[in-house]
Amino acid sequence: MTHKITFKPHNREIEVADGESLIRAAMEAGVHINASCGGEGVCGKCRVLIEEGDIEGGISEHLSDEDQAKGYRLACRSKVKSDLVVRIPIESETDTSRLNLRTSARQTAKEGQFNIDQIKNEGLFIPPVEKIFLQLEPPSAENNIPDVVRIIQELRVNHDEHRLVTGLCLLRKIPDTLREDNFNVTVTIVRPVREDGRNQIIDIEPGDTTSRNFVVALDIGTTTLYGQLLDVNTGEAVAQLGDFNPQISYGEDVITRIVYADKEGGLEKLHEIVIGTINKILDKLIKKAGIKRDEITSVTFAGNSTMTQILLKINPKYIRLAPYVPASVLYPQFRASELGIDLGDHTTVLVYPGASSYVGGDIVSGIMGSGMYRSEKLTLFMDIGTNAEIVIGNKDWMACTAASAGPAFEGGGIKFGMRASKGAIEDFSIDPVTYEPMLITVGNVKAKGICGSGLITIAARLFETGVIDNAGKFNQGLDIERIRKTDNVWEYVLAFKEATQIDRDIAITESDIDNLIRAKGAMYSAAHTLLEEVGLTIDSIERIILAGGFGSYVDLESAMTIGLLPETDLDKVTYLGNGSLLGCKMNGLTNRLRKDVGEVVNMMTNFELAETNSYMDHYIASLFLPHTDLNAFPRLKKKLEVLKKK
Amino acid sequence: MTHKITFKPHNREIEVADGESLIRAAMEAGVHINASCGGEGVCGKCRVLIEEGDIEGGISEHLSDEDQAKGYRLACRSKVKSDLVVRIPIESETDTSRLNLRTSARQTAKEGQFNIDQIKNEGLFIPPVEKIFLQLEPPSAENNIPDVVRIIQELRVNHDEHRLVTGLCLLRKIPDTLREDNFNVTVTIVRPVREDGRNQIIDIEPGDTTSRNFVVALDIGTTTLYGQLLDVNTGEAVAQLGDFNPQISYGEDVITRIVYADKEGGLEKLHEIVIGTINKILDKLIKKAGIKRDEITSVTFAGNSTMTQILLKINPKYIRLAPYVPASVLYPQFRASELGIDLGDHTTVLVYPGASSYVGGDIVSGIMGSGMYRSEKLTLFMDIGTNAEIVIGNKDWMACTAASAGPAFEGGGIKFGMRASKGAIEDFSIDPVTYEPMLITVGNVKAKGICGSGLITIAARLFETGVIDNAGKFNQGLDIERIRKTDNVWEYVLAFKEATQIDRDIAITESDIDNLIRAKGAMYSAAHTLLEEVGLTIDSIERIILAGGFGSYVDLESAMTIGLLPETDLDKVTYLGNGSLLGCKMNGLTNRLRKDVGEVVNMMTNFELAETNSYMDHYIASLFLPHTDLNAFPRLKKKLEVLKKK
Repeated sequence: MTHKITFKPHNREIEVADGESLIRAAMEAGVHINASCGGEGVCGKCRVLIEEGDIEGGISEHLSDEDQAKGYRLACRSKVKSDLVVRIPIESETDTSRLNLRTSARQTAKEGQFNIDQIKNEGLFIPPVEKIFLQLEPPSAENNIPDVVRIIQELRVNHDEHRLVTGLCLLRKIPDTLREDNFNVTVTIVRPVREDGRNQIIDIEPGDTTSRNFVVALDIGTTTLYGQLLDVNTGEAVAQLGDFNPQISYGEDVITRIVYADKEGGLEKLHEIVIGTINKILDKLIKKAGIKRDEITSVTFAGNSTMTQILLKINPKYIRLAPYVPASVLYPQFRASELGIDLGDHTTVLVYPGASSYVGGDIVSGIMGSGMYRSEKLTLFMDIGTNAEIVIGNKDWMACTAASAGPAFEGGGIKFGMRASKGAIEDFSIDPVTYEPMLITVGNVKAKGICGSGLITIAARLFETGVIDNAGKFNQGLDIERIRKTDNVWEYVLAFKEATQIDRDIAITESDIDNLIRAKGAMYSAAHTLLEEVGLTIDSIERIILAGGFGSYVDLESAMTIGLLPETDLDKVTYLGNGSLLGCKMNGLTNRLRKDVGEVVNMMTNFELAETNSYMDHYIASLFLPHTDLNAFPRLKKKLEVLKKK
Repeated sequence: MTHKITFKPHNREIEVADGESLIRAAMEAGVHINASCGGEGVCGKCRVLIEEGDIEGGISEHLSDEDQAKGYRLACRSKVKSDLVVRIPIESETDTSRLNLRTSARQTAKEGQFNIDQIKNEGLFIPPVEKIFLQLEPPSAENNIPDVVRIIQELRVNHDEHRLVTGLCLLRKIPDTLREDNFNVTVTIVRPVREDGRNQIIDIEPGDTTSRNFVVALDIGTTTLYGQLLDVNTGEAVAQLGDFNPQISYGEDVITRIVYADKEGGLEKLHEIVIGTINKILDKLIKKAGIKRDEITSVTFAGNSTMTQILLKINPKYIRLAPYVPASVLYPQFRASELGIDLGDHTTVLVYPGASSYVGGDIVSGIMGSGMYRSEKLTLFMDIGTNAEIVIGNKDWMACTAASAGPAFEGGGIKFGMRASKGAIEDFSIDPVTYEPMLITVGNVKAKGICGSGLITIAARLFETGVIDNAGKFNQGLDIERIRKTDNVWEYVLAFKEATQIDRDIAITESDIDNLIRAKGAMYSAAHTLLEEVGLTIDSIERIILAGGFGSYVDLESAMTIGLLPETDLDKVTYLGNGSLLGCKMNGLTNRLRKDVGEVVNMMTNFELAETNSYMDHYIASLFLPHTDLNAFPRLKKKLEVLKKK
């Protein structure tokens, strides 16, 4: 259910979902409301007058009884429950028209979608692990062939299944299982990737259990693990769950993990704890979905090369040392128990191949999940983060590289930086006249700090309004309380002490912006270099796919304003969400994708930026907002000109 | 070194090995010497006069000083140390000419031989598990392909190795091992059985270790386990060792084992203890040969279907229940650790396929080891024992069956029956005039009992000398102390109390002979039935192969005399020794054999005797010495006629 909100006096309208916070709705509509506490009703600045319709909440001690009676409410505490007419009071009412240039990208860009029906229509829906029901003739004196032969003959003759092999675990189960339901059994078969490979019979169950076939997709991120339990028969996720990667305690990024893994017992420890968390996630998924543990027939993992090697207990040491060689990029299929994963003896583990030490299985999985490898369009695939991966190409070729952006996007090296968890400022606008902020925090609570997506938006807004210049330096001529020098560093106060959870002013500093510029510069110049290496230019890009949890939260226009992304039409940008998880999901459901992935990996050409001479030049040119070459950002250039005139 | 012995007064000559016992030499030469204690110098009856040459030992309190001075020695205690002239004293001197008809088959029949050179000449010497030395180019910025890819590319390009796959264990070892000796490594590859299969890289070691490649052949018998450690580079056995199957404590034969396995925890127990003994044997083989544990690259097991299923922890329950269905006859290859076998992580286990529930991997292994599947000759392959297996055929076809002979051949159901261990009477002759025995025991110690091969020879001699008739009944007219009735059963005393280890007279009874007749009848009639089923007769057999430890000890002429074996020229009979072990050995050394074995198993037609109507008729006809139809034994017929005339 959605509701229409009309903001007065500008008569701006927007449709929002039932229960949406009014301050978020205003931000989406480009209507500025002063607000700095992030939504806990602490600063009391975001009061609005509800002229028509119903809201829930919005009452606060910051509102006098009289105001309450008149219909004033705090926007940050109000949930939309019907169509509304809302008046922005005079204290917030400024010329917000400049902000209208901005449209929330998050609402307009398309989500990468996994379409099971399309896959079925294309005939690609052959799960890598399939169940087949067999009604066998019971043995007799005339027909006392071995149990296994009975099964294999039936599969050959009546199911056109060939090149069948079995394993020890299966053999142990066969005799009793066959006789449990008078030789009516369901066998589980793992398909080979190669046409001439073997079909492996991995399980046998009494009766017809073909309707009970579940697979798990599991993205092993450096920071988070994310699992989905899928019903193979419908392609639907029946449960999903995320958790932190417990290895965080041993280092925030891959490099510190690699260093730790090389210590005595380090690899074993990191391996053990991630397996522990995987088992915890599996337990919860199984419980949530109400299925039996041994109904899970396969698990697909994807992670970057370091996470993958640690998962498999392969020392990632040489990933970090020049010339950066991973142990492998293709991984064999094996049984879950070989890894200590607490699933059935038969459950098969599939691990996503990577392309190089720094373009790992998570990226390949994302590429597979996005379908970019089947598209004609020249696509820029970006996974933004400390370790940023960039892939450029289409169905005919692909070039990839990885750039070290530093930790700014994940809140590292930022004075009040934090992960995108409760209390993190994730959205921001600024009154171009009063320079008062409007903040939105994750979870609508008092601010605790700034997360990566918030940082990008804040920097973009400060730049557009001239609070900082294109080198990221503060305009020291602005005589505003919020713009000040602390400990000899210029900063803009986002929230004063009393409006925060941390009992300190939360500000963004010049050095924060400097770190951000270096991070975004590394990414942009990596894409630029990669394109140049393959003889193309930035403007030949027809599509941008943003992968990774972080990518989904980035405000596109802001990202283009600061020069993190090349400037393109917003509708050319797709958010993939957790692309790695999406690729795992598809891998668990269609064997065709497992066949394709080998070809995709083979056609990916990896470029080491350190070995590419032009990279440093491009990087230095990128250390401006948005870039030395403003002409590459024509829309922004025009916008800045408009803003300057005002 | 051998020595020539001339026995006086008959001037019989024989060549024997240095150190051979003189009484054995006499028996081989067909010279009778009275002896009943089995070689411990207790009865003192076997004294002989050494006229020329040196012997070692032979002194005893049973010889007076005077006799000793003259040169008398006890034959059972004398070891041949030079050419000899030996006179048999008057008390032993009887007409031994009748015994000359007999020649020790054990000396004349050919041993099935494993000929590594022949295999090499035939181009079949491609071990299933091979080592290849690689000198790889170390990685550089220009060539930083993953470690695994570096190995696979080298194998493809410079060693013509294709369809290569790896496993988790290997991946874990690769990065460090590559860098241990500057990218000089030796990889271990398991060959596929099928042409289109995968070559599996299972191990990597620094430097060149190609000269260190060992495999183990292990025969898992119901009673004994026998292991050989082989050097793949020479094909030679570098150590070998036998041990009892500890499962004996839970039942002597396969049926009692199957029953025990089906009890709560029974299968696990039987599995565990056999694995324990296998590990013990491996420990000793490794120590004996002075090799490193992880230099063993593969182990090949063979056993009957029950032993194989217990080894693999597959409940053998349905082998025993009609219609006698084994879980499988083809077994996958797997890693030793999956079975709890204490070898390297990479060590590959190969298990011999069987043909049916009662014609198992040990028999197939024997067929492969004997080379019968490559011969034109119609061959009768027999493994004599409680569970007797019979295969008839040649390179174009094979028919097999199993017969339950009962435990007589293994000393079961025989009053003084025992296994062929120290003190068991294993050879016997009888003075046709005095009916005095000449015994040889295993280990030349005082007799403890009778083993299967002894039993056959004793029965044959008693039959030939008319002590028993063709129904196995004693000639009650013979007035000899040794032939008597005890507890209402007729018997022949082989050794009186004082000449035994057991402080009792050791005798063979009429009921023992009855059991033996039923056992041999079951075997002969099984072969007869099988031949008839395929439209052939007994006399079409061109060759007999005796497999199994027991087979090697059977005196051929005796076996034909009692009708256990069809009568043929002795030189048509081959002892295979432990055929199962031999097949395992070849399997470990030539992959060609692994390819052939599948075809052999496919062409084996199994006949269930219980389903074959004529079997019972043939069986009843076989319950005589040698058979109802004496004409089927023309040589024996003639011999009996000669003996009768005397």
